Amino acid sequence: MAALIRNGRIVTAVDDYVADILVDDGRIATIGLHLDVGGDVEIHDAAGLLVLPGGVDVHTHLDMTTSTAHTIDTFGSGTRAAAFGGTTTLVDFCTPLPGQSPLSALEDWHRLRETACVDVGAHMVLLDANPGTLGEMHTLVRHEGVSSFKLFMAYPGVLMVDDGALFKAMRVAGANGAMTCVHAENGSVIQALVDEAVALGLKAPKYHALTRPAILEGEAVHRAICLAELAEAPLYIVHLSAAQSLAAVTEARDRGIAVHAETCPHYLFLSADEYERPGFEAAKYVMTPPLRDHSHQAHLWRGLKTDDLQVVSTDHCPFCFSEQPHGMRYSKQQGVESFARIPNGAPGVETRLPLVFDGAVVKHGMSLNRFVEITATAPAKLFGLFPKKGTIAVGTDGDLVLFDPVERWTIRAGEHHSRVDYSLFEGRELTGRVKKVLVRGQCVVDGTRWLGRDGMGQYLRRSESGQS
Amino acid sequence: MAALIRNGRIVTAVDDYVADILVDDGRIATIGLHLDVGGDVEIHDAAGLLVLPGGVDVHTHLDMTTSTAHTIDTFGSGTRAAAFGGTTTLVDFCTPLPGQSPLSALEDWHRLRETACVDVGAHMVLLDANPGTLGEMHTLVRHEGVSSFKLFMAYPGVLMVDDGALFKAMRVAGANGAMTCVHAENGSVIQALVDEAVALGLKAPKYHALTRPAILEGEAVHRAICLAELAEAPLYIVHLSAAQSLAAVTEARDRGIAVHAETCPHYLFLSADEYERPGFEAAKYVMTPPLRDHSHQAHLWRGLKTDDLQVVSTDHCPFCFSEQPHGMRYSKQQGVESFARIPNGAPGVETRLPLVFDGAVVKHGMSLNRFVEITATAPAKLFGLFPKKGTIAVGTDGDLVLFDPVERWTIRAGEHHSRVDYSLFEGRELTGRVKKVLVRGQCVVDGTRWLGRDGMGQYLRRSESGQS
Amino acid sequence: MAALIRNGRIVTAVDDYVADILVDDGRIATIGLHLDVGGDVEIHDAAGLLVLPGGVDVHTHLDMTTSTAHTIDTFGSGTRAAAFGGTTTLVDFCTPLPGQSPLSALEDWHRLRETACVDVGAHMVLLDANPGTLGEMHTLVRHEGVSSFKLFMAYPGVLMVDDGALFKAMRVAGANGAMTCVHAENGSVIQALVDEAVALGLKAPKYHALTRPAILEGEAVHRAICLAELAEAPLYIVHLSAAQSLAAVTEARDRGIAVHAETCPHYLFLSADEYERPGFEAAKYVMTPPLRDHSHQAHLWRGLKTDDLQVVSTDHCPFCFSEQPHGMRYSKQQGVESFARIPNGAPGVETRLPLVFDGAVVKHGMSLNRFVEITATAPAKLFGLFPKKGTIAVGTDGDLVLFDPVERWTIRAGEHHSRVDYSLFEGRELTGRVKKVLVRGQCVVDGTRWLGRDGMGQYLRRSESGQS
Amino acid sequence: MAALIRNGRIVTAVDDYVADILVDDGRIATIGLHLDVGGDVEIHDAAGLLVLPGGVDVHTHLDMTTSTAHTIDTFGSGTRAAAFGGTTTLVDFCTPLPGQSPLSALEDWHRLRETACVDVGAHMVLLDANPGTLGEMHTLVRHEGVSSFKLFMAYPGVLMVDDGALFKAMRVAGANGAMTCVHAENGSVIQALVDEAVALGLKAPKYHALTRPAILEGEAVHRAICLAELAEAPLYIVHLSAAQSLAAVTEARDRGIAVHAETCPHYLFLSADEYERPGFEAAKYVMTPPLRDHSHQAHLWRGLKTDDLQVVSTDHCPFCFSEQPHGMRYSKQQGVESFARIPNGAPGVETRLPLVFDGAVVKHGMSLNRFVEITATAPAKLFGLFPKKGTIAVGTDGDLVLFDPVERWTIRAGEHHSRVDYSLFEGRELTGRVKKVLVRGQCVVDGTRWLGRDGMGQYLRRSESGQS
Repeated sequence: MAALIRNGRIVTAVDDYVADILVDDGRIATIGLHLDVGGDVEIHDAAGLLVLPGGVDVHTHLDMTTSTAHTIDTFGSGTRAAAFGGTTTLVDFCTPLPGQSPLSALEDWHRLRETACVDVGAHMVLLDANPGTLGEMHTLVRHEGVSSFKLFMAYPGVLMVDDGALFKAMRVAGANGAMTCVHAENGSVIQALVDEAVALGLKAPKYHALTRPAILEGEAVHRAICLAELAEAPLYIVHLSAAQSLAAVTEARDRGIAVHAETCPHYLFLSADEYERPGFEAAKYVMTPPLRDHSHQAHLWRGLKTDDLQVVSTDHCPFCFSEQPHGMRYSKQQGVESFARIPNGAPGVETRLPLVFDGAVVKHGMSLNRFVEITATAPAKLFGLFPKKGTIAVGTDGDLVLFDPVERWTIRAGEHHSRVDYSLFEGRELTGRVKKVLVRGQCVVDGTRWLGRDGMGQYLRRSESGQS
Repeated sequence: MAALIRNGRIVTAVDDYVADILVDDGRIATIGLHLDVGGDVEIHDAAGLLVLPGGVDVHTHLDMTTSTAHTIDTFGSGTRAAAFGGTTTLVDFCTPLPGQSPLSALEDWHRLRETACVDVGAHMVLLDANPGTLGEMHTLVRHEGVSSFKLFMAYPGVLMVDDGALFKAMRVAGANGAMTCVHAENGSVIQALVDEAVALGLKAPKYHALTRPAILEGEAVHRAICLAELAEAPLYIVHLSAAQSLAAVTEARDRGIAVHAETCPHYLFLSADEYERPGFEAAKYVMTPPLRDHSHQAHLWRGLKTDDLQVVSTDHCPFCFSEQPHGMRYSKQQGVESFARIPNGAPGVETRLPLVFDGAVVKHGMSLNRFVEITATAPAKLFGLFPKKGTIAVGTDGDLVLFDPVERWTIRAGEHHSRVDYSLFEGRELTGRVKKVLVRGQCVVDGTRWLGRDGMGQYLRRSESGQS
Repeated sequence: MAALIRNGRIVTAVDDYVADILVDDGRIATIGLHLDVGGDVEIHDAAGLLVLPGGVDVHTHLDMTTSTAHTIDTFGSGTRAAAFGGTTTLVDFCTPLPGQSPLSALEDWHRLRETACVDVGAHMVLLDANPGTLGEMHTLVRHEGVSSFKLFMAYPGVLMVDDGALFKAMRVAGANGAMTCVHAENGSVIQALVDEAVALGLKAPKYHALTRPAILEGEAVHRAICLAELAEAPLYIVHLSAAQSLAAVTEARDRGIAVHAETCPHYLFLSADEYERPGFEAAKYVMTPPLRDHSHQAHLWRGLKTDDLQVVSTDHCPFCFSEQPHGMRYSKQQGVESFARIPNGAPGVETRLPLVFDGAVVKHGMSLNRFVEITATAPAKLFGLFPKKGTIAVGTDGDLVLFDPVERWTIRAGEHHSRVDYSLFEGRELTGRVKKVLVRGQCVVDGTRWLGRDGMGQYLRRSESGQS
Repeated sequence: MAALIRNGRIVTAVDDYVADILVDDGRIATIGLHLDVGGDVEIHDAAGLLVLPGGVDVHTHLDMTTSTAHTIDTFGSGTRAAAFGGTTTLVDFCTPLPGQSPLSALEDWHRLRETACVDVGAHMVLLDANPGTLGEMHTLVRHEGVSSFKLFMAYPGVLMVDDGALFKAMRVAGANGAMTCVHAENGSVIQALVDEAVALGLKAPKYHALTRPAILEGEAVHRAICLAELAEAPLYIVHLSAAQSLAAVTEARDRGIAVHAETCPHYLFLSADEYERPGFEAAKYVMTPPLRDHSHQAHLWRGLKTDDLQVVSTDHCPFCFSEQPHGMRYSKQQGVESFARIPNGAPGVETRLPLVFDGAVVKHGMSLNRFVEITATAPAKLFGLFPKKGTIAVGTDGDLVLFDPVERWTIRAGEHHSRVDYSLFEGRELTGRVKKVLVRGQCVVDGTRWLGRDGMGQYLRRSESGQS
């Protein structure tokens, strides 16, 4: 069935106009004034609403297993939460188990992904740059539609690779038209600080932040940029949180180096003050990098304005705060004795669009065009999803969000659709709310009603990344 | 009569897709696949062609009188040349005579403008910041649609204002939603160098360049930025030519200051080597700022890539090289005895789009989106013309260029439509050529045929500038 | 009579050791352990004291006449005050009257200088760069020992020169081995701000500061550097007060450009908070540039540490606060109706050394060597006085300060030797005090006793400046 | 026996004057005009000569054993060569064998050091930051006079430590008043490049340079600075060779961070062009970092001028070019089959002073004061040797060089005193030559005559380092 969105204010990364949109067979067929349609067409009145391209969140960890923990959202629950938040496209991280090959990990990931309600692509995490791994990269990009890889400069002994491996992976990625994503923190020095803190008995959640100083993120970002410059390969810094990191990105971008970076809503709106919460409550805010001192926020907003930050993603990596029937692996309570055992990560996939709208457009005067760019267009372009996703144009998938720019509401974890039991932003009042969401022309969210179904999401075989 | 452009590859600053465009009553009514239209519609087949928004050139000097010279193009001849070059919107500089009020100058300008073939807006040059002048600024912005002002930091005794006047004008402009454009060179030091050169008998055209060193442009750009920052007003640097200037712009933009800059094709493609041409031939290249050493070009290309330069304009300011029947005022020959008397300026309005396409897209790998942005979208947005001009979207004026991206051709002044008798780029081979041009849906250029007419251009009452 | 300083801890810009110093015939003849001298030698026991080279203050305005004011200290009173503060060398500004030639002004200056108690050189202020003025510069450097010139970028209509004149003077200065000193503030924009404030009735002393924002100093410093770089001439920024200015100096020095800068004690220790004093009291702090926001101080201390600031001078320019019998020209009271009529300037020649010792060495951990460098050696080297002044070495003038590094005392204007009736630092407690001062071997200060006499100071014919 | 140096032009880092110097009991007792001495005094006429403090070279590898090679100079031969070159103080690197404790390594080093002819101190190389090693650092600084440590960011599997270890060592060093010296190259990425080159059969000496690109030095320097800043400990970058490295140092020093750096004569005077020499000849120039592209030299000279480089050391690490009777371990010939097996290092201890004098003073216009500073004073101050070494002042050791600033001569390995069989600078003509050298008052070099003896050098127990 076709869908017609009438009289909405259509906003893309560059345009802003009022017209009707006809979606047929999942794609936008016609945009025009007073479109005349007959037959089997579902009509959505968007008068007074913004019509935005569906949000694109390129940083999630759904149904993820690590050696000590497991994220609480399945692809079903996580993508439903995303849809309610106006996000219709995810690129999720596929993380091999120790010793597992990337292609084998991708098979496992696909099995879990089948329940997704919105379209989902995969980044592949690389745990090494051995010949076997490097050899599979070509297959992943060319045959599996996985055109981005992620490596860790942190978590020694678990996820961290050395600089030689990072460099080798960057070169192979670049040669194959793929993006290299990097978690940039100096893991070796952080480990020294963590060991020292633990040895001194400093085990409260706040020591998570105190053992991961901003300068060690800035250092690693600079290092990653040097390696990417030498490798002549595009680079994407995930979850950039610190002024020092942004300075390194800005300097490189000023020279025209292909460096890109995302930040996350929690770095824009929250600070290390949260770690002063009493008892174990602060564990809710234990993610990596940690929340920073307030002073970093102005830098991040500056970066979003000057395009030194291109994307706002969520790093949705949900662990419950309370104990869970399925076991400790799903809960922050693992770390009650020591911050070093708290699963790192926090939820956010459902609140990204409204938080950024409220913070950026309403409070910081960001243009609607730029809002669309950082939440949909730029990530789609950077990760090989454009023009299928990320814009509103003839031929594009009919992923559309009808958004009320003036409605006020309050974030409540109790009303969310993720399986996680808390929100970083509990009680925060926002202006701007998702009203309807269409996935390839099908309305899946109508106010608080869920009209979608598990499994309706498709796998996104992405084209080359980082080639803009 | 409506117009339908079929099967073109439509490119905007963000999108790139194949569809049909229906222009009705001068504006884009519908964009879609296989549009079904009946009746009185002119059909243009764009298969294999790019369909671009009409070019926007925000720096021209048509029919301009100065104390010693007069540009050779009328609005009729200049806008026809523009149209043949794919540019359908100009913002021309209205320059008061000494002692004349801006509003009076605008009246004179309108009389000349009536012959224009494409739509034209006006920037107002300010020769002082006296209370009378400042008082007219509000009227110009709010009632006359003149939302940008230009002041000169060069040409002491003729056009130059002191820093206090520049600052006062910036504040009034900013408070009224207007952009301040600045010709940034340190006129006082340049005058000292010119006087010295003339006194030493160094009068060949090349001394025009040697007495205007790049550092004096960089200094003035930095100064203008400081004043704009203090005035909290948006700034636009015209004809930026030097690495030092770009460095100042980059530094300010990195901090989020509202500074914008254009460069011109001659700075991107030509260098001070031209001043080594024998005899008086070098006078053809006497414009201000002068052509720079080769080494500056890489910086300018970098700036276009990193968005530290947002616009490529022409500074079309045509004086004939040979003697003219109408008198010396129209000719470079005035300066045959001394570079200091050569009218400063060069033509270019017709060659901008193909030169930039060839240089940027074909040779430097710039994306088509970015090409559209720097030649149409960004200038339209910066100068209050968007979304009427500068994009392809429903509701936008039907100013469209059908462009063949692979045709090769050679620039010849003899085939141009300006009244000027030379080209800076004579004999240069290019890839990419304008095939058809529509102004508000009416085809005015079809290959080498002119289908437009003098006077069909409309005056563009602009909304606020510099507010993006 | 010779003098022997026994057992002092001798500190130069590089060395630090205990020895005896024998001064004979005004110059240091021998430095050694346990010097054995007979005959007519005055012996000073310096055990437990620092022995420092006499301070060099290269920024004073003694007995200076401007169009509206006159500084209260004669060369006699000013140099006596200097000596009590451990400063044995001044370079004072000779300021021509309107229309007066530099050489004529120097004659007048010499007449006033004859009462000086310590050795004094002259900088020449240039009010224009006319051929006559430029012509005298060679004579001043080569025959009069005046190897530095000062021009103003502020005070339009009174002292300000345009950029062309500044540039021309820099070139002639550089070619003659002379330094160009610049008062760097954008006078034209400041005038616009002052006129506006006065027109709005904002006339309290604090508007002096509010109409001279730091960015306008930074702008002018950057501009002066560009002109000096083009002129290939050394530059000295006087009384640098703002972070923006220092950033420009640092950037240029990082590239090896011959730019130097001084700051003054009041910028290091006081802030714009002083302008909040009740009534007209704030007028005491009206100097140019004005005191800045607190945040600038850390930058200035950083600059002293990293050698981006080379000198601390006083800009001693004393006007009494209370009404004076000699008339209003000597008093701040001129400006009681409007800040724009307050004579700009403040005293300081007597407190420089102890203030800097306390602030830099005691509180900021600066090395003694660096303390000597910024208060004596560097100014002597920069202004053609070295090695006659500024160090302790065989052959150097016997200008020595015996300084107690641990004595605590309190600044009181009532105990000072200047004729001015207030101190910027009234009541400030310091560690470190001048105990004895020798001028060319003659002890002129012994505790609170004055042993010198008016006229014993010599004129310092300086060699080339800015040539280090 | 005392020594009297008559009528020399004495130059220190700040002063420059003519006087006599009396050295008694090894130390400077008196400096004065026409010193009158009787008795047992050896008189050296220095008329027309410079009298300089003995050179201080803080980077040598004498009699050093590595897993695959052995430097050819003993302390006897190496220090004799140093003395002939005007260098009277060395700080040599003590390198433990794998598994050996620092204190044990120091014992071995002392046994070898006993033959030294000039005074020698030790830096301690750290191969790890295990508790045992960290525990010995305090003893080394406080009891053994070893107040500096060196760690390697290069040579994985041999000398490289990870960032955590580097950070831990920095903190302990800083807390104990010791300097951390770092060999800054990204060893992990270099290893990847070397492995790749070798696998591709690219084994000629030039691949040593091609597998160690400058950006990997710059990266490591930046990283070391971040770690030192976090550790709040002083840092010294050894053998800085690249513009990128210097930029990182400059940026940090501009902020007042305690970062210091040395470069070496071969980086100032030679370039990667040497690797184009035919056959195996290029192996002579295989040192680490490798010689760089010409363009880096201007940056290094800039750094010496602006004090972003403080020291010129030699990194004297001599291996013979030809086969040696003692075995391959002493010769470059080890690497004839593959650059990866060439012992890294080159000689230079004898030519440092004259090379720098000729290059810096004669050709680059550096002041004599600055020449003394970078070759003697600054290294002495940075490494706890001042004022015993590094200046000419009463109480300082009588280590003096009589230097003819105008004599021209040619470097010939055949005339050198090192045991190595080649010079990097063979055939280079220089202006300025060492004429006489005194060690603690004793003349050891008189023209080409050697008057010293093995074993006369003393061990230098250094005080705190990096505390200036």
